[in-house]
Amino acid sequence: MTRLSKTRRPLVAVVDTTFSRFDMGRAALKELSAFDVRTVRVTVPGIKDLAVECKRQLDAGADIALALGMVGSADIDRQCAHEASLGIQMAKIATSKHIIEVFVHETEAQDAQDLALLFDDRTRKHARNAARLLLDPRWFVKRAGQGLRQGRQDVGGLTA
Amino acid sequence: MTRLSKTRRPLVAVVDTTFSRFDMGRAALKELSAFDVRTVRVTVPGIKDLAVECKRQLDAGADIALALGMVGSADIDRQCAHEASLGIQMAKIATSKHIIEVFVHETEAQDAQDLALLFDDRTRKHARNAARLLLDPRWFVKRAGQGLRQGRQDVGGLTA
Amino acid sequence: MTRLSKTRRPLVAVVDTTFSRFDMGRAALKELSAFDVRTVRVTVPGIKDLAVECKRQLDAGADIALALGMVGSADIDRQCAHEASLGIQMAKIATSKHIIEVFVHETEAQDAQDLALLFDDRTRKHARNAARLLLDPRWFVKRAGQGLRQGRQDVGGLTA
Amino acid sequence: MTRLSKTRRPLVAVVDTTFSRFDMGRAALKELSAFDVRTVRVTVPGIKDLAVECKRQLDAGADIALALGMVGSADIDRQCAHEASLGIQMAKIATSKHIIEVFVHETEAQDAQDLALLFDDRTRKHARNAARLLLDPRWFVKRAGQGLRQGRQDVGGLTA
Amino acid sequence: MTRLSKTRRPLVAVVDTTFSRFDMGRAALKELSAFDVRTVRVTVPGIKDLAVECKRQLDAGADIALALGMVGSADIDRQCAHEASLGIQMAKIATSKHIIEVFVHETEAQDAQDLALLFDDRTRKHARNAARLLLDPRWFVKRAGQGLRQGRQDVGGLTA
Repeated sequence: MTRLSKTRRPLVAVVDTTFSRFDMGRAALKELSAFDVRTVRVTVPGIKDLAVECKRQLDAGADIALALGMVGSADIDRQCAHEASLGIQMAKIATSKHIIEVFVHETEAQDAQDLALLFDDRTRKHARNAARLLLDPRWFVKRAGQGLRQGRQDVGGLTA
Repeated sequence: MTRLSKTRRPLVAVVDTTFSRFDMGRAALKELSAFDVRTVRVTVPGIKDLAVECKRQLDAGADIALALGMVGSADIDRQCAHEASLGIQMAKIATSKHIIEVFVHETEAQDAQDLALLFDDRTRKHARNAARLLLDPRWFVKRAGQGLRQGRQDVGGLTA
Repeated sequence: MTRLSKTRRPLVAVVDTTFSRFDMGRAALKELSAFDVRTVRVTVPGIKDLAVECKRQLDAGADIALALGMVGSADIDRQCAHEASLGIQMAKIATSKHIIEVFVHETEAQDAQDLALLFDDRTRKHARNAARLLLDPRWFVKRAGQGLRQGRQDVGGLTA
Repeated sequence: MTRLSKTRRPLVAVVDTTFSRFDMGRAALKELSAFDVRTVRVTVPGIKDLAVECKRQLDAGADIALALGMVGSADIDRQCAHEASLGIQMAKIATSKHIIEVFVHETEAQDAQDLALLFDDRTRKHARNAARLLLDPRWFVKRAGQGLRQGRQDVGGLTA
Repeated sequence: MTRLSKTRRPLVAVVDTTFSRFDMGRAALKELSAFDVRTVRVTVPGIKDLAVECKRQLDAGADIALALGMVGSADIDRQCAHEASLGIQMAKIATSKHIIEVFVHETEAQDAQDLALLFDDRTRKHARNAARLLLDPRWFVKRAGQGLRQGRQDVGGLTA
C-alpha cells in the first residue's frame, strides 16, 4: 500500500495505566508501527482515569483512542471496571469518536506467563482494529458475524 | 404503495459487529430492501462499539439506526451488554433519534441452528420495525399493548 | 373549573409500547380526557425505546410525557427495565421536563385479570398525576408524605 | 449573626414526594427557617421524579436543592432508588450546583415511631447542611474527617 | 527543580468529606506542599457530593481535583460509592479534566490504626499522582504496566 503523506495520516491515542502489570501501551505502539498512522502515548494511574484522558486526546485531535487497562482480582475491581467502562461510553458519545476498550482481567489466565501472552495478544489485535477503523473500515464489513475474538481463538460464524 | 422519490427516502444505518457469530447486518439489509428506505452499513468490532458508531451515522444524516450485536456466553459478557446498552441510551438522547437495539444472547438457543434462526428472525423483525418507525409510525399505535415479540412468538394482549 | 382556551392547554405526550400486553396508552388517554390538557400519542416497540421518544415529543413541544411500559418476566427483562429507566432519567435532565415512568412488571399479579386491573389502575393514576403536575402542582404539596401509591392502596403517613 | 438583606439571601429548593410516608418537606422547611435563606417547596409523586424537579428549580434560580425521598420496602424499590440517585448525579453535573440527597429506607427502623424519628432527624441535619453549604462552607472544612452522620450518631474520627 | 512562578503554578482542588473518619484533605495538602502547585480545599458532607464540588472547582479554574472519600461499612454504602463514582466519571467528561478518585472502604483494614495508616498512605500517593499529572506526565509513561498501587505494596510487572 502507498504510504499516506505524514500530514494525512490519522492519529491514534494510546492510553494505558501504571496499575496494569503489563506494558500494554508498548505492545500497542509496536503493533501500530506497521500501520500508516501517527501515534501519541499517555499513561494514567488506573482504569478510571482512562475515559477522560481519551477524551482529552480526542479533543486535542486524535482520531481514535485505545483505552488499555488491567482489571485487578479484588472484589471491588470488577465494579471499578464497570464504572471505567461507562465513563468510556460517555467519552465516546461526547466526542463522536471511537475508543477501543481493551481490558484484561488479572484472573483470566492461569499463571504469569499466560497472562502476559494474553495481554500481548489482546492488545495487539485491538490495536490493529483501531488502525483499520481509520484506514480500512470495509475490512470489518467483510468479516461481519464471523465470531472474531481478541485474546482468544476466533469462534467462527453460523449460517441460517 | 407508491415508492418515495430517492431523495425523500429516509436513511437507515445498519451497524453490526465482527464478534457476532451471525451476519446480522446482512439479514437486516435483506429485510430493509423491501421497504422504501435507503441504507448505510457499517461493522465494528464488538457491542461496546455500537453506540458511538450509531451516533456517528445519525450525526451524518441517518434517520434511524439498528444496533445489532451478539452477547457472548462468558460471565463478563452480560456486564458488557449492560454497558453497551447504556451507551446506546446515551446516543439516543444525544441525537434525539431512535436506535433499535437488537441483542441476541449466545445462550438463548439450544444448538447452532436454533441460534441462527433466532438471529435471523429477531434481526428481521427489528429491521421492519425500524423502517416502520420512519415510514408508518401509526402502525405501532394500532398494535399498542398487543404483546408483540421479536425473535419469539407474540404473546397477545390482555383486556381489563 | 373553567376550561382553559385551547391554545393555553398544556400538551401531554403519551408514549407506550407494542411489547406490553395491555393497551396502556388507551387507558392514559381516557383518563386524561377528563383534564384540561391536549394529548399526543405515540407507540414504540419496547421499553428501551421510550426515553428517546419522550425526548422527541418534549423537544417538539409537549410539556410532560408519560412513559408507559411492561417489564417482561424473563431474567434479562429486569436489566432492560433498568437501562430503560436510566435512559428516561437522561431524557428528563436533557429536557428539564417531567417524564412520568409507569412500568408494570408482568410478574406483579397472580392472573391475567389481576394484571389487567393493575395495568389499568396504575396507568390511570399516573396519568392523573401528569395532568396535575401541569395544572395544579400544589395538589402534591398538600399530600406530601402521605404514602400515596399508584396501582396499590395508599399506605398512609407517619407522624413524629 | 446579622441577617442578610432579603435579596441577598440564597434560595434553597425543597423537593419531596407524596410516596413518602413522612412529610419530609415540612421538616426541612422548619429547620431552614432558622437560617438566613429563602425557600421554595415543590412536591412530586416519587423518588424518580426528584432529579428533574431539582434541576428545574436550580435552573430557575435556586442555589441548592434538597431531594427528599423514601425508598420503599419492595424488592424493586432499591433499584428505583439507584436510578433516582443516578438521575440526581446527572442533575448536579448539568447545573453545577449541589443537590443534597436525603433518602430514608422504609426498612431502616424497627417500628413506625422509630421511622418517623429517623425521617425527622436525617431530614433536619441534611437541611442544615444545605444552608451551611451556602452560608458558611468553611464549617465543613473544620469538621473534615470527623465521621459526621445524618440520622445516626456521629462515629468520630481516626488519627494516623 | 526551579520553582514555577506563582502565576504559572497549576491549581489542585482538594475535596473531601465530613462523613469520612480520617482527615483526608489534610493528608493531601501536606503531600502537595512538596510540589510546585497551588491548592484550594473544600469539604462536603459525603461521597455523593464530591463529583459536583469537583466540577465546580474545575469550572472555577482548578486544573485537577482530588475526590477524597470514605465508603462506609453498611450494605447500602457500596451502592452509594458506585453512584458517587459514576458522578465523578460524568464530571470528568463534562470538564475534560482529571479527577483522581480516592476512596477508602471502612472495611479494608483490621483495626482503627491500620485504617488510619491506609487512609494516609493512599491519600498521599494519589495526591502525588495528581501533582505529577500536571507537572510531569511523562513520569507515568516511564512506569506504565509496572503494577503500581496506592495504599498497598506495588505488585510489579510481567514480561511477555
